[in-house]
Order: sequence, then C-alpha cells, then structure tokens
Amino acid sequence: MSRRADQQVPDLVERARAGQARAVARLISLVETESPLLREAMAALAPHTGHAHVVGLTGAPGVGKSTTTNALIGSLRAAGRRVGVLAVDPSSPFSGGALLGDRIRMQDHAGDDGVYIRSMASRGHLGGLSWSTPQAIRVLDAAGCDVVLVETVGVGQSEVEVAGLADTTLVLLAPGMGDGIQAAKAGILEVGDVYVINKSDREGADRLRRELRDGLALGEAREAGWRPPIVKTTAQAGTGIDEVVAEVDRHAAYLRESGQLHVRRTARARAEVEAIAVAALRRHWDDVAGRDGLDELAATVASGEQDPYAAADRLLEDRA
Amino acid sequence: MSRRADQQVPDLVERARAGQARAVARLISLVETESPLLREAMAALAPHTGHAHVVGLTGAPGVGKSTTTNALIGSLRAAGRRVGVLAVDPSSPFSGGALLGDRIRMQDHAGDDGVYIRSMASRGHLGGLSWSTPQAIRVLDAAGCDVVLVETVGVGQSEVEVAGLADTTLVLLAPGMGDGIQAAKAGILEVGDVYVINKSDREGADRLRRELRDGLALGEAREAGWRPPIVKTTAQAGTGIDEVVAEVDRHAAYLRESGQLHVRRTARARAEVEAIAVAALRRHWDDVAGRDGLDELAATVASGEQDPYAAADRLLEDRA
Repeated sequence: MSRRADQQVPDLVERARAGQARAVARLISLVETESPLLREAMAALAPHTGHAHVVGLTGAPGVGKSTTTNALIGSLRAAGRRVGVLAVDPSSPFSGGALLGDRIRMQDHAGDDGVYIRSMASRGHLGGLSWSTPQAIRVLDAAGCDVVLVETVGVGQSEVEVAGLADTTLVLLAPGMGDGIQAAKAGILEVGDVYVINKSDREGADRLRRELRDGLALGEAREAGWRPPIVKTTAQAGTGIDEVVAEVDRHAAYLRESGQLHVRRTARARAEVEAIAVAALRRHWDDVAGRDGLDELAATVASGEQDPYAAADRLLEDRA
Repeated sequence: MSRRADQQVPDLVERARAGQARAVARLISLVETESPLLREAMAALAPHTGHAHVVGLTGAPGVGKSTTTNALIGSLRAAGRRVGVLAVDPSSPFSGGALLGDRIRMQDHAGDDGVYIRSMASRGHLGGLSWSTPQAIRVLDAAGCDVVLVETVGVGQSEVEVAGLADTTLVLLAPGMGDGIQAAKAGILEVGDVYVINKSDREGADRLRRELRDGLALGEAREAGWRPPIVKTTAQAGTGIDEVVAEVDRHAAYLRESGQLHVRRTARARAEVEAIAVAALRRHWDDVAGRDGLDELAATVASGEQDPYAAADRLLEDRA
C-alpha cells in the first residue's frame, strides 16, 4: 500500500457513503484481496450498516438467475430503491473473474448510479462465502443500498450457504431441467423463503409448481409464521417480477415484525465473527509453526504415525 | 454410550480390519454423529492407514455418476480389489440419508463382502467435506480397501473440495447437458486428473471431447508431469470402464513415482488437522462464552456497535 494508507480508509468510506462507485469497488477489492486495510475499513463502516435488506438468489445453472437478477434490478430501480448486486462464484478459485451474465446486466444498467454490480470469487485463502461475502454486503449496506442481491453460481453447498447470508432467500427453478432438478430439490426445500418458477411460459411449469408445493407441504416449515410463496415468472419478458419484489417486501415485513430479522442477522454475524477468528488462527498457525512446521505435522498424519486429533492438539498447544 | 464403551473401540477396529461390514458401518457412524469415541477410534485406526488409493468422482447431476461408480466397482472387483464407496451429499444437512442411486448400486453388489458402500451427509455441526469425509476414508482404508471411491452429489464447491480429498480426481461430463455444463466447465478444468465423457453414445460426445481438450490445453496444467487423459464411456453398457480404471492406475503410479502422492496426502492431512483444531475451538467457544455469550457478541456486530474483527478479537481473548 502507498504512504497515504493511513488516510486512505476514512476517505474511501466517506466517498463510498456519498455513492461513488469507484470507492465502493475499492472497498470490495480490499475484501477480495484480504488487504491489511480491511480491518480498519470494517471498523469505519460498522456504524453505517443494518439498513439494507439482503436477498439471496440461488438455483441450478440454466434456471435464469442472471436474467431474473437483471429484471429485479429494473423493478427495484423503478421504485427508486438503490440496489447492490454481488454475483458470487463459490467454485472459482480466481478473484475478479467477470461472469458472463455480468456484462449483460452491466449494459442494461450502465450509467445508473443507483445500481452497483460486482462479481466476486469467494475462494480466497481464508475460505468460502462465510468469510468474504458478508463483508462485501457490509460495504454495499454502508454505501446506502436499500437492497443487496447476492446471486450464487452453481448448486449444492452454495444454496445452504447463501441462505445463511441472506435476510430473504429466493430459490429459482425452471421447468424442463431434467434429472438435475430432481436431485437439487432435496436441498432446496429447506432454504427458500420465496420460490420462483422462472421460464413459466414453458411446458411443465404447472407440474413443477405442484411438485414444489407438495414437497414444501411435506417438509417442516422453516419458520412457523411464514409459508413460502411460489411465484411464476418469465424474467426474459419481465412477467411476474413485480410480484417477486412484493413477496420479498412482505417477507421483510414479516421478519421485522416477528423478531426473526434480528435472529437471522445475529446468526449471520456469529458465523462471520467465527470465520474471522478462525482465519486469524490459521494465519497464526502459519506464522508460529511455519508452513513447514504444519506440513511436518501433517506428514506424520499422512504416514499414520499419529492420528489427526493428536496432531490438532499439538497445533492448539502451539498457539501463543 | 454404553458401559462397554471402553472396550468398544478396540473391538470395532479389530472387526473392521477383519472385514466385517457392520463394524465398518459403526465406525463411520461414529464420524457422522461426531461421537466422543471418534478420537479413540482414529488413534486406533491410524497405524493401519495409507494403503488405499482414494478416487474422487465429481460432475453435474445427470452425467451418470452413480452408474459410473457402479461400473467401476464391477471392474475393480473383477480384478480382485477391495472397494469402499462413500457417496457424499454436501448439500444435505441430514445424516444417514440414502441416495436414490445408492440402493441401485447396493442391489448389484449385495452379498459381495469385497465392497462396502455408504451414503454420508457431510453437513454436521462441524462443517463440510473437510471434516467428516477424510475420517470416513480413514476407516475404509484401515479396513483393507484397496480403492476408496468418493462420489459427491451436486456441482459447485464440492468439485474443488473432492479434489482436495482424493489422490486421483475423476471429472464426469456428458453430452447434451445444456448451459449447465458450460457454467460448470470453468470450475472443473483445474481439478481433474482423469476426465470421463459418459453417455458417449449420444450426439455431441465428440464435440464435448474437443471442447474439453481445448479448454484443458488453454489452462495451466495442474501438474507439470501429468496431462489429464479424456476417456469416453457408456457406463450403462460398461463400455470404457476398464480404460478408466487403467488411467486411474497410471495416475496412481505417476503420483508415487513423482513424489506427488506424498505432497497430496500431506496437504489433505493438513486440511484435516486444521479442520479438527478449528472444530475443537468452536466447541470451546460455545463452552466458555456460552452460546448466549457468543450470540450477544454477534448481536453487537449485527447492530453495527462493533465490527466483526473487534468481536473476533474478543472471542480469541476469551480462550482459556
């Protein structure tokens, strides 16, 4: 970092709060690169957080997540709301990667300073979604976004993770996705607050809706006071999108009134604090034992000389 | 646990080493349930580990992972090799869940005591693949399996994770999977040691092979001394399966001769030791601070009173 480092963070935070996209970009880059300035930035941002409603979008590849995100941005902007979008790719170990859909979205909303869109890889040295994404959300929140959309690429673990990060989780499905959807369904019935059946002009949309409704009815409700609605959309044409926004707003109101918003946000903060503490310890283990020291320990486990629990004890004893 | 707990573990380990499936099942259940006996079990198993070659299978839903696994078991058994199979579902928070394909496989190899097949959820309290799967592999290894196949359900993060767990990673693709494959490809080009194009009797197999070969050529080689082969299979008919096994064996030989086997296993043990140490700390944080204490800390972060780094410091100071 430059010699101006000690002035850099307050200046960045001020400019981000004034809505300057470049300052927001720079702050998120601090997250992505695990910058030494990150800590100071988070401290400066903290008092300005808590306003944004965080909406997670998840669903298998091909259901139209990018198109839906784009349509949601349009609907939210039409209502004058400021929108931040994080497109997170948990499977990519590379940072700064631009997703295909990203550039398409960028074009639609280029020049609109009420929208901030960013692609993020989530696989830094310090681990996945739980480490970097909440901090990027924090940046967008402090920068005055009313809604932050977090879109994950891929299925599997990411669904559960994104549900942990969001106030409201949208699960997207589409008819005619074949076996993949069947396999994915088991994992999605527990995580959605609002279900969206996209591409609903296609054959099979009503059947999918029925199956989904039956599946949801069979499972245990995630929360006693909220029955997840199912909305049919054709994001490409903009159909149903305002209804999705209305259901998200209804869920946000439910969360506030029931006290669940506080519960979810506390759980999210808890995971974030734990992830940061664990990352600090990992760094400490590298520093103290040295990468080689830890590898030597690991080699004794690989060879069967000692079991991993005994080695973990040694690691924990080593701490200052 | 019963009063016999102190005799239980040595007895279980002895019976598992003698090839008794029920003892193997019981030991893996200790892993899944995060049993207090697990530590003793791992210590008893450690000296008997290091023999099995661990093969990871990954690929999008619908490419035929279950069918391929089944065919691979057949080929390995025909050569007289003992096989362990772990079908891991990283997206499921439920344990003991039987996967659909599982029962099908079971039928094919029922009554063969040279095969042990187990479904595992990987989302216990202590986290994902990195915590439980290596320990389950350890059980199968100590029980005398020559090859352990680890099959993950879903795409995304799991691909990268399974590659971290395996000596040899098989990535499965199939023609005609649509956009999903395109999206998945970016994530898979870095993780495969052997690529399998299944359902290769379908249209588009040759094009997929060309695209894959081009993609692999563009990327950086994962290891200088190994160019990942692409094998075409039709697992349903058994076509190409012996060739996959031959490529896995060739890769195993390469790993041994190049010293990479030691490197990979050390990295795997390192991740395992870290995961166990982190889990121990999390438990400690729960015990010392109390769940409420940690939640109070988290609530101050959620409200913007303090930033997550300051809270993480408090957590780390709290440790005994």
